[in-house]
Amino acid sequence: MTMTINPLDSALEAWLSNNDQRLHDDLFEFLRIPSVSANSAHKADVARAADWVHAHLARLGFTTETIATPGHPVVLGEWRKAPKGAPTVLVYGHYDVQPAEPLELWTSPAFEPTIRDGNIYARGSVDDKGQLWLHIAAIEAHLAARGTLPVNLIVLAEGEEEVGSDNLAPFIEQHRARLQCEAVVISDSTMFAPGIPSILSSLRGLAYFEINVTGPNSDLHSGMYGGAVVNPATALARIIASFHDANGKVAIPGFYDAVRPFPDAVRAQMKQLPFDELDFKKQLAVDALGGEPGYTTLEKLWTRPTCEVNGLLSGYTGEGAKTVLPGTSMAKVSCRLVPDQDPETTRTLVEAHVRAAAPAGVTVTVTALHGGHPWRAELEGPVFDAAARALATAFGREPVIIGEGGSIPVVNDFARILKAPVLLVGFGLPGENAHAPDEWISQDNFRRGMRAIAALWDEMAPK
Amino acid sequence: MTMTINPLDSALEAWLSNNDQRLHDDLFEFLRIPSVSANSAHKADVARAADWVHAHLARLGFTTETIATPGHPVVLGEWRKAPKGAPTVLVYGHYDVQPAEPLELWTSPAFEPTIRDGNIYARGSVDDKGQLWLHIAAIEAHLAARGTLPVNLIVLAEGEEEVGSDNLAPFIEQHRARLQCEAVVISDSTMFAPGIPSILSSLRGLAYFEINVTGPNSDLHSGMYGGAVVNPATALARIIASFHDANGKVAIPGFYDAVRPFPDAVRAQMKQLPFDELDFKKQLAVDALGGEPGYTTLEKLWTRPTCEVNGLLSGYTGEGAKTVLPGTSMAKVSCRLVPDQDPETTRTLVEAHVRAAAPAGVTVTVTALHGGHPWRAELEGPVFDAAARALATAFGREPVIIGEGGSIPVVNDFARILKAPVLLVGFGLPGENAHAPDEWISQDNFRRGMRAIAALWDEMAPK
Repeated sequence: MTMTINPLDSALEAWLSNNDQRLHDDLFEFLRIPSVSANSAHKADVARAADWVHAHLARLGFTTETIATPGHPVVLGEWRKAPKGAPTVLVYGHYDVQPAEPLELWTSPAFEPTIRDGNIYARGSVDDKGQLWLHIAAIEAHLAARGTLPVNLIVLAEGEEEVGSDNLAPFIEQHRARLQCEAVVISDSTMFAPGIPSILSSLRGLAYFEINVTGPNSDLHSGMYGGAVVNPATALARIIASFHDANGKVAIPGFYDAVRPFPDAVRAQMKQLPFDELDFKKQLAVDALGGEPGYTTLEKLWTRPTCEVNGLLSGYTGEGAKTVLPGTSMAKVSCRLVPDQDPETTRTLVEAHVRAAAPAGVTVTVTALHGGHPWRAELEGPVFDAAARALATAFGREPVIIGEGGSIPVVNDFARILKAPVLLVGFGLPGENAHAPDEWISQDNFRRGMRAIAALWDEMAPK
Repeated sequence: MTMTINPLDSALEAWLSNNDQRLHDDLFEFLRIPSVSANSAHKADVARAADWVHAHLARLGFTTETIATPGHPVVLGEWRKAPKGAPTVLVYGHYDVQPAEPLELWTSPAFEPTIRDGNIYARGSVDDKGQLWLHIAAIEAHLAARGTLPVNLIVLAEGEEEVGSDNLAPFIEQHRARLQCEAVVISDSTMFAPGIPSILSSLRGLAYFEINVTGPNSDLHSGMYGGAVVNPATALARIIASFHDANGKVAIPGFYDAVRPFPDAVRAQMKQLPFDELDFKKQLAVDALGGEPGYTTLEKLWTRPTCEVNGLLSGYTGEGAKTVLPGTSMAKVSCRLVPDQDPETTRTLVEAHVRAAAPAGVTVTVTALHGGHPWRAELEGPVFDAAARALATAFGREPVIIGEGGSIPVVNDFARILKAPVLLVGFGLPGENAHAPDEWISQDNFRRGMRAIAALWDEMAPK
């Protein structure tokens, strides 16, 4: 990518500069509401945070509705007065936060926003109130500076992201027509590094299993039976060992068949990202990394599927020695998936492999516990190009394409149900403590984020 | 083996027949004492059982002493009036018993001996009061019928066998000179099957380890890190898988080097034992057995070393799915050893193998938790030959040689400290419930046991 970097429209820039303190003040007010969705003691606070979002959207002239769900409500704001031919964009964010405990590990109180060293510290500062608010602030900039918006906007703020978003997919299904749009924009993730704006290209999916191996009908004395009976713990270890070849590549037949390679250009760009492998190893206190040969660490994390053991249990695990030959053994095993793998096919492949690898003398079961589809962004087209230009405007350099090894289920829900491209542009940073004490967002990123999103509406408008 | 079967001396046979009821009555009195060594509430009962043994030996004219230990006392009886040139034999047994709980599962009360279907049911009936008493009864037969014994006898009865015999090895060390003997005879084990008298040829030793694998310095998110970090659970599984080859033979280099093969004649005899593999599988509810190729199931259990997993623990083992890449993993692994393997050399071999099998990116430790030496009987010589003849006299057929996959530490203590051959001839039977409710000894075996031991003293006397 090489691009001309456009400056932000001067009226928007002037308004954002002149109102910087007030935009901080409003965010701080939002952050002071302890809207912990996981804790029923905070139910009223969660409702108060929904009301806060509702009020701010309504004040901007959005048609706003707070819609009940079986859990916490969804706040839906709509503004559909853009010029004919303008696209409709759905902005998604969440107004609930993680619990703040352990409170004693916070340098300043979790729900009293405090600026230190250019960072705003508070629960929800980056996940996701700060990032939701910078979208609303960008909208206000347009409306205040110009009296209008260049695109139609739907803002959807939910209150259950931190407890699994159980009610969101049904909500999107139910309101599918109303939510119809040309793009979904989500800011709930991080940039690669300070000063490097980033567009998220992919999320890995998940296929999570429990494997149970059953041998003799009870635990046996390892002296009286050892050496003649198939040991379920040994059998399980041999099954797990068969999941990878000697080099670390997954050896389950057919596992990679559905993998769609990333475009060479994206891989080439990922290879150029300033990733410090020594530092990564030092952080984890390991002397070597592992995984599939032929890929960089970032490629392994962002673009390649895995098969990892999440848990093991068999026999005696207490202190000292007990001479037991276990009757059963159990492993939790999960595969991270990349497009176009899917959880159900993966389950079939893993189960067939486990059955083939299990020796006579034991029986095995493979139970699917959890699954999620992988996602890959559209890395070309008008939405992506507009985002690249808008981020360049705000950060003074073109964005990089990054990946994410984990999953964000709502991304798939939006893409699947609304059949619109989803753009993930986040303004968090590594080390932001999203789910830990001392959560923070960089003040600079908060400011650049408002400008990037303000620019995005202009960049998405028909020329 | 083919031998002429000698009848029991008629005077001994007559006395044992005439006193059968009284010998039962005395045993029942002994069994009514709830000498549970594990339970301090029974401390006085344990002392009462020691007194009972003391009194019965003293009554026979034994120089008898009850010697305190840090735990329960040892009763030591000596009779050294045999003709010049007669050997001295040490008889070992224990007067303590396992707890009887759960009491509600006993058909008749645990401490009220009851005969049903030719079996004597009571806690301690077979383990070991019944078998200790049949030795004392055989002594009484000689002294009553003939006024003398053909060998010098030491009877050593301990009260801590069911709690680990912690004080016995120091006791033997301390009284080594007094306990000097030509043979140790122990009846605290089982015969191969009803009607088949058995001499125990071997006990397996033990080398028990805990293996700890450490990877990253904390549990990681399996999405954010999976595929690039060496997973300690997977690494452990691969290490365990490397312990055996594809056929089930232990693949730790050097593992079998010290194994001294059993004599072909003993192996040939073991192969002829009526062992029902189908029934064995049915009891365990498995469709196939495992272990080292080239050996029968009994040979695997009695004559070959093993490497078994006793426990596995890593990561998340609760209900459902948790996407964790564990920071550590742990296995309990133990090797059963056969002569001339030893625990310390085995530890060295296992540790070297584990270190070689561990991938870069994790560190491993191997901690030795417990060890015990294997034991093999002298299967020829005057003691063995005398036992074979005596068992044939009592059971009407020559004995078979059997093994035992577990360990009985006191056997090694006697052999090691006194440097005398140890003869294990037991009169229990499979299914005797030694440590379970409804423990029993066959009345027929009790009677034949008294006769076998009475014959043994004659067979051990110089001709």
